[in-house]
Amino acid sequence: MQMREKDPPMPDCDLGLIGLAVMGQNLVLNMNDHGFKIAVFNRSLPKMDDFLAGPARGTRIVGRRSLAELAACLKRPRRVMLMVKAGQPVDDFIEQLLPHLEPGDILIDGGNSNFEDSIRRAAYLEGKGLLFVGAGVSGGEEGARHGPSIMPGGSPAAWPHVKPIFQAIAAKVEDGTPCCDWVGENGAGHFVKMVHNGIEYGDMQLIAEAYHLLTILLGLTEAEGGAVFAEWNRGPLDSYLIEITGRILAIDDHDGQPLVRKILDVAGQKGTGRWTVAAALEAGMPLTLITEAVQARSLSALKSERLEAARVLGGPDPAAGRHNGRADWLSAIHDALYAAKIISYAQGYMLMRAAAQSYGWNLNYGGIALMWRGGCIIRSAFLGKIKEAYAADPGLTNLLLAPYFVQAVAAAQPGWRRVVAQAAQQGVPVPAMASALSFYDGYRQAWLPASLIQAQRDYFGAHTYERVDQPRGQFFHTNWTGTGGSTTSSSYVA
Amino acid sequence: MQMREKDPPMPDCDLGLIGLAVMGQNLVLNMNDHGFKIAVFNRSLPKMDDFLAGPARGTRIVGRRSLAELAACLKRPRRVMLMVKAGQPVDDFIEQLLPHLEPGDILIDGGNSNFEDSIRRAAYLEGKGLLFVGAGVSGGEEGARHGPSIMPGGSPAAWPHVKPIFQAIAAKVEDGTPCCDWVGENGAGHFVKMVHNGIEYGDMQLIAEAYHLLTILLGLTEAEGGAVFAEWNRGPLDSYLIEITGRILAIDDHDGQPLVRKILDVAGQKGTGRWTVAAALEAGMPLTLITEAVQARSLSALKSERLEAARVLGGPDPAAGRHNGRADWLSAIHDALYAAKIISYAQGYMLMRAAAQSYGWNLNYGGIALMWRGGCIIRSAFLGKIKEAYAADPGLTNLLLAPYFVQAVAAAQPGWRRVVAQAAQQGVPVPAMASALSFYDGYRQAWLPASLIQAQRDYFGAHTYERVDQPRGQFFHTNWTGTGGSTTSSSYVA
Repeated sequence: MQMREKDPPMPDCDLGLIGLAVMGQNLVLNMNDHGFKIAVFNRSLPKMDDFLAGPARGTRIVGRRSLAELAACLKRPRRVMLMVKAGQPVDDFIEQLLPHLEPGDILIDGGNSNFEDSIRRAAYLEGKGLLFVGAGVSGGEEGARHGPSIMPGGSPAAWPHVKPIFQAIAAKVEDGTPCCDWVGENGAGHFVKMVHNGIEYGDMQLIAEAYHLLTILLGLTEAEGGAVFAEWNRGPLDSYLIEITGRILAIDDHDGQPLVRKILDVAGQKGTGRWTVAAALEAGMPLTLITEAVQARSLSALKSERLEAARVLGGPDPAAGRHNGRADWLSAIHDALYAAKIISYAQGYMLMRAAAQSYGWNLNYGGIALMWRGGCIIRSAFLGKIKEAYAADPGLTNLLLAPYFVQAVAAAQPGWRRVVAQAAQQGVPVPAMASALSFYDGYRQAWLPASLIQAQRDYFGAHTYERVDQPRGQFFHTNWTGTGGSTTSSSYVA
Repeated sequence: MQMREKDPPMPDCDLGLIGLAVMGQNLVLNMNDHGFKIAVFNRSLPKMDDFLAGPARGTRIVGRRSLAELAACLKRPRRVMLMVKAGQPVDDFIEQLLPHLEPGDILIDGGNSNFEDSIRRAAYLEGKGLLFVGAGVSGGEEGARHGPSIMPGGSPAAWPHVKPIFQAIAAKVEDGTPCCDWVGENGAGHFVKMVHNGIEYGDMQLIAEAYHLLTILLGLTEAEGGAVFAEWNRGPLDSYLIEITGRILAIDDHDGQPLVRKILDVAGQKGTGRWTVAAALEAGMPLTLITEAVQARSLSALKSERLEAARVLGGPDPAAGRHNGRADWLSAIHDALYAAKIISYAQGYMLMRAAAQSYGWNLNYGGIALMWRGGCIIRSAFLGKIKEAYAADPGLTNLLLAPYFVQAVAAAQPGWRRVVAQAAQQGVPVPAMASALSFYDGYRQAWLPASLIQAQRDYFGAHTYERVDQPRGQFFHTNWTGTGGSTTSSSYVA
C-alpha cells in the first residue's frame, strides 16, 4: 500500500488573515499572543516569508501560499480577515476568496473601509450564504499589537464566532472590560469607526487651538505649554492626545529649539474626517466642530497663500492682551477646550443617532463610548462619563442634556466665552472653540432667526413657511409685495 | 392636381422649450418679449394648452404636441432647452430627443442640475456630435420673467448660437451689460450656479445673525430692525436680500405683531447649499462660512430638541449687555455683516478657482461677478467691487488680497471683532460671523498650530512630517517615545 505523499492536515487554524502591512502583522502577533492559531497570506509572498522568518519566528503563525491553501487550513466556519487597502482591493480579494468559502463562513474586513461599501458587501455576501463583518480597528500600529479598540458590525450571526478572538486581543479598561463589542448590522462598525476618526480630528484641532492660545495669550514657551498639557492630563481632560501633546511640546530639536516649531504647519488628512462631514451633511446633522477641524487642516495647507496674506492683511497686536492674570486665563483655556470637546462628542453622537435611524441600526451608545475608552487615539477618561450618561438614560436625546454634561458645560462656560471673546479681539483663530460656542448658543435657543430665512425664501421663491401658531405640516405663503396673486420678488435694479 | 392636406411649415422657431412649470413659462414669455419665436412642449398636454390659452395668448409662442413636431419646427442648428426637474427627467428627455436631433444641434439644460451630471451629459452628447449647454438660471420666477442671471457652460461651439437669446432675456446692469456670459466647458455653468446658491445661503445666514443681534444687543423691535436694513441698503450692503429683509421685518401679521415672529424658525433647504459644501470638501477648500450657514439651517430644524435644550441649558442673560451705546453697536453689527460677507465671497471664489484647476475651466472671475450683479438672488452693489478687483488683476490669488477688500476688511475689522466677542459673552449664536473671523485670522497667519497636529499624527501613526527648514516633499519621522526603531504610541492605560 502506497502512502499519500502529503496528507492534507486537519484544519486547525482559528483565523486566516490576508494582508501583512504593519497593521496586519501586529494583529496576527496579538492574536498569537492570546493563544489563537493564525494562518496568513500576503499577495507578495517574499514579504510573507520575511514576516514568518522575522517577527513571527517562534510563534504558531503559519503561512499559506494561496487562498486555497489558506481556506483549507481553517476550522469551520472559516474566519478570514482582510487587512488590505480600503476600496477596490477589498472587493478583489472577496471575489478571489469566494470559490474557497462555504455557506456560513465569515469574511471580516478590518480595514478603513467606507461604511457604504460595508453595507453593500454585507448584502452581497449574505446573498451568497456567507457572513460579513466590517470591523473598525483603531489604535495605530501599536494598538494593533498590544490592544486596539475594535468596532465590529455586519452579519449578527457572525458575532459569536468572532467575539472570542476580538475581545481577547482588544484593549481593556480598568475593570477588564474589552474595548470591543458588537456595534450593529452591515456597515455600523465602519460607521462608528468613521465617527471616531471625525472626533479625533476635532480633538486634535481643539488641542492645537489651546496650544496656540497658550503661546499667544499667555506667552508660554513650548516647554511651559507642554507642562500645562501634562498637568491637564491629570484632570478631566485626561486622554491619550493630551498626554502625547505634553510630551511632544517638551521635545527639542538638535539645536535646542522646540521640535514642533520646525515642523511644517501644513496638516495632512487621509479622508475619514471628510467622510464624517459628508455623512453629517447627508443626515442633516450640524457637526460644526468636526467640520471646522477638517477645514482648518485645509486652510493650513494653503501655506504659500497664507504667507502672502500675512504680509497684506492686518489684525490686532496678538501680544496686546498677553499680560492678563495668568492663572485665570490658564483655567479659562482649559475650560474652553473641555466645553468644546463636550460639544464635539455630543455632535458625533447626534450623527450616530441619525444614522441609526436611517439605517435601522440599534446602536448601544454607552457601549460605543466604552469601546473608545481604551486602545484608540481618542481614548480618555471623559469617555467613561459618556458611558455613564447612557447607562443612566439609554434613551438620552442628546449628550448635552445629560445631567453630568449640563453641569460640566455650565461650569466651563464662563471661561469658554471669555476665551472665544478674547481670541476674537486679539486675532487668534479658534475655529473649533468658537464654532462649538455658536452651536451651543444656537442649540439652546427656543427661537432662532431662521424664521427670517423662511420669510426670505417665501419672498423670493414662494417656498412657503410653517407658523408657530399652527400645526406642523401646514404651509403658508404671503404675497409680500402685494403686487398680484403670485409671489414676486422686488423690481430691484442692480 | 391634389393639394397636400398639410404642408409642413418651414422651420421658423428660434428655440424649443420643454417643461412648462412657472420657470419655463416665464422664460418663454421673456424670450417672446424679446422677439424670438418659441415653440413649447410639455409632458402634460392639457397644461401646455392652458399656458397657450392663458399667459401665452396673443404671443407668437406655439405649442407642439410631440418631440418630433417640436424638432421639426426649429431653425437649424436646433436649440432645444429643457426646463424640467433636475436628475433623471433630464436624462429621460435627452434620450427621447436624440432621434429627432442632428449633429450640430444644441441641447440646453436650464434646470438646477448638479454640475457633475452636466459634465457627464456634455461628454455624452458631444460624443454623438451634438452640442450641450448647462445653464444655471437664477432670479426665481420673477427673474425668469423679466431678467434672470444666466450662467451658461458646456460646448463652446454652442455659445454663438445661444448668446443672442440668453443675453437678450438676461438682467442688465446699469450700463446695459447683460448678466449672462459664457462661463466655461461642460459643467462650469452649473458649478458657478451652485456656488451662487451656496453664497446665497451664507448671505441669508449673515442677515439672520444681524437681525438677531439687533434684537438682542440693541433691543430693537422688528419694525426698527427693518428700518435699519432699509438704511443699510443705501450703503455698501446695498443688495436684494438686504432690501427684502427691510421689507419683511416691516410687515405685521393680522394681529399687529411682526409676521416674522409668527413664522416657524425651521429653515428649509433644497440641497444646493449641501452640494457646495460637498464640492468644497472634495476640493479641500475651507468654505467655512457657507458650511456654517448650511449647518445653521440643519440646527434650526431640530426644533423640538431645541425646546428641550432651552429648558435645561443655561447661558448668560442675553439682555445684560443691551444698553451699550446704540449707534456704535449699530455700526459694529453693520461692519460684522459686511466683513463676514467679504469672507464668504472670497471663499466662494477660492472654490471656483480650485474647481477651474481640477476641471480645466478657464473661468472669468470678473465676468462671474458681473453675471451675479443683477437678476439673481445675491445681486448687489458689492459684486461690482468684485468685478473691479478682477478687472484690475485677473490673476488675483484671493479676493481678500485685492486692495479694495484689504481696506474694507481693515476698516470693518474692529466692529466685527467687537460683535463676535460680545455675542460670545452674551450668548447670541453668530456661527457665520464668528467662523468668518476665525477663517480670516487663520488665513493671515504665517504660522498655524497645524504643526502640532502633524507632530501628533507622526507620534501615533508614523504619518511623517515636512520641516520648515527643508524643501517641501521631504518627509521626516521622529521616534517620539524613544523606545525603538519604529514609532510607538505611549503605553497609556485607559
